[in-house]
Amino acid sequence: MYNTAMHAEFIHEHKDYGFDVEVKKFDWSHVKHTRDAYIKRLNDIYASNLEKSGVEKLVGHATFTEDKCVEVNGNKYAAKHILIATGGRPSIPNVPGAEYGINSDGFFELEDLPKKVVIVGAGYIAVELAGIFNALGADTSILIRFDQVLRTFDEMISSFVTDAMEKAGVKVMRSAQVKSVTKKPDGTLTLDTTAGQMSEVNCLLWAIGRVPNTDNIGIEKLGVELDKQGHIKVDEYQDTSVSGIHALGDVCGKFLLTPVAIAAGRRLAHRLFDNKKGLKLDYSNIPTVVFAHPPVGTIGLTEVEAQQKYGSDKIKIYRTTFTPMYYALSEVKSKCSMKLVCVLPEEKIVGLHMVGQGCDEMLQGFAVAIKMGATKADFDNTVAIHPTSAEELVTMR
Amino acid sequence: MYNTAMHAEFIHEHKDYGFDVEVKKFDWSHVKHTRDAYIKRLNDIYASNLEKSGVEKLVGHATFTEDKCVEVNGNKYAAKHILIATGGRPSIPNVPGAEYGINSDGFFELEDLPKKVVIVGAGYIAVELAGIFNALGADTSILIRFDQVLRTFDEMISSFVTDAMEKAGVKVMRSAQVKSVTKKPDGTLTLDTTAGQMSEVNCLLWAIGRVPNTDNIGIEKLGVELDKQGHIKVDEYQDTSVSGIHALGDVCGKFLLTPVAIAAGRRLAHRLFDNKKGLKLDYSNIPTVVFAHPPVGTIGLTEVEAQQKYGSDKIKIYRTTFTPMYYALSEVKSKCSMKLVCVLPEEKIVGLHMVGQGCDEMLQGFAVAIKMGATKADFDNTVAIHPTSAEELVTMR
Repeated sequence: MYNTAMHAEFIHEHKDYGFDVEVKKFDWSHVKHTRDAYIKRLNDIYASNLEKSGVEKLVGHATFTEDKCVEVNGNKYAAKHILIATGGRPSIPNVPGAEYGINSDGFFELEDLPKKVVIVGAGYIAVELAGIFNALGADTSILIRFDQVLRTFDEMISSFVTDAMEKAGVKVMRSAQVKSVTKKPDGTLTLDTTAGQMSEVNCLLWAIGRVPNTDNIGIEKLGVELDKQGHIKVDEYQDTSVSGIHALGDVCGKFLLTPVAIAAGRRLAHRLFDNKKGLKLDYSNIPTVVFAHPPVGTIGLTEVEAQQKYGSDKIKIYRTTFTPMYYALSEVKSKCSMKLVCVLPEEKIVGLHMVGQGCDEMLQGFAVAIKMGATKADFDNTVAIHPTSAEELVTMR
Repeated sequence: MYNTAMHAEFIHEHKDYGFDVEVKKFDWSHVKHTRDAYIKRLNDIYASNLEKSGVEKLVGHATFTEDKCVEVNGNKYAAKHILIATGGRPSIPNVPGAEYGINSDGFFELEDLPKKVVIVGAGYIAVELAGIFNALGADTSILIRFDQVLRTFDEMISSFVTDAMEKAGVKVMRSAQVKSVTKKPDGTLTLDTTAGQMSEVNCLLWAIGRVPNTDNIGIEKLGVELDKQGHIKVDEYQDTSVSGIHALGDVCGKFLLTPVAIAAGRRLAHRLFDNKKGLKLDYSNIPTVVFAHPPVGTIGLTEVEAQQKYGSDKIKIYRTTFTPMYYALSEVKSKCSMKLVCVLPEEKIVGLHMVGQGCDEMLQGFAVAIKMGATKADFDNTVAIHPTSAEELVTMR
């Protein structure tokens, strides 16, 4: 869907690159069905790999029993090691009419581009979906509780992305919360919000956070410790408070990212069954990309986190903002901003934050370098690749 | 021009992403003039910075005199340090009618897209320009002496790019050389080649290599040593065989890349005038991108070079080929291929070669890591960023 939005954006820029183009139609449904078929193909491949590797699959709702077994479809299963990887689900606020809204799963069920969309939330899911709707031509609003989106990110990212969304046409409604939702006979929604009424809404999407799937699996019978939000508490080895019960992924509430769960799972398997004692996932310096418009890449500490951890006088910041060469010929220019957070005296890089065209594919390599303990000098010792945006990261002054 | 070609490619893929689009016109001239204005603006900025920094600029043809001065416009200038950075120029073969062809400079003077183009050469300039012409709709042929383009690159890259060019519609004429060129009254060219005659050619472009600008600057009077091709011989500090005479950039014939010349120049300046003794550019592990379709990123040794240097039994190769997610929805799929060249036993990465969408922005960060001495384990220890193409480099098996 992000790539679809990217096509819409390229269409706007065709004329800058000499192309006179007329758009006759956009067919959301074509994209949806090709996409669904692709995902089904992937799912089938995974299912088939699981089968080939000899894994027995039981389909049903699983609950723990008091004797530390798992019960599915009336049968009880015991094992030396049990892994909980039940993930999470989007949360829905407790307001009247909340059920008229959809969530990120519902987004993928939409058969057509809604005309008027309201997204509630300021996290990366809200930002990504608002960006897609907006680029594809929906009248898009985003309701946020404070004054910026992506508030847990470095301030440079939050303010850049909030600003870029507004410039791109998304209505950012600050300090706004939904009080109630009603549905009219014509199917449109009316939202009563702390920032006023919004009517004729065709799609309301909640993206206010996710809750862990720990509420109906009988976990309380085992005495596995949970945190206040219901996430399973695990140590650095993915072990819960109960011996033989492990957990990983979104259900633990830390870094809700597929590759993190995969990486943790691989290490756990090798530790338990492959004699790799002490193997565990290092949760520091995990790179993330937010598919905003333009995309965001970030790893390590924000400027504020680094100041708190090391003291302000120990932190040196490098930053740059420039117009990527792609926009040299275009009327509307999208900037790229980058920031390195370094710890003195050796200028070890503890944070890298960037937003701009290409930052999605740009981050992974820098993540390797930072994981290796890169200093600013290591960046500077690398010859720049011209003309790219990435070269700006090794030529900062 | 590469971005313009990219737009043309996106137009072909619009329908895969649900957009029904009609192209009414492509205006090469618009792009040319916007581009020229942008470059002029850049040139003016550089000129103005030079002036602001108090540099005296003399415009004229400079030649060395026997008493180690530089003569410009009848005046002689002496200095403790003289830097030769005269660069190079495209070479033109010694065949009848060669003057009817243009070179890469002439490419930027074209006022319109030629209908039928023949490019002679197999290096990155030939590949980049053929890709642009072809994507924008010219009937494009490339004449190469052997059977693949980019022959100095890793074999995976040469064969991938040659194949991708052909699939995209470029006519690759192998083992072919031009014997003579004639011009018809209608302005079209006829080429007599070892692979047959080619007629109705609107644009012939030589991209067979570059020669250093050392042939008319009086350098022979100083006794500065040149290699057989006329490049200035320098040591690792950019010092020529004559004390006080330094040289860098294309005129030295090694890594003909802007950022390499800039990096070498900075280090030379700091060494000579900033008391940074011993400072020099490390010419190993210089990353390069070729703006082919799709783009190529490469750093370090090719597989063959590594075998020769370390012995075949000391080399371990990791490779992968996949379809980037962007093409999940598209009819015509462009692949991405990646290769890591590692030295045993610690699997130190001495070469990284890749070609595929996004490889241009992807390389810089990996270049930092490899420059730092990254091993395969360093790559594997970094959490993948999903969904990107770059993540494949840290999840290779």
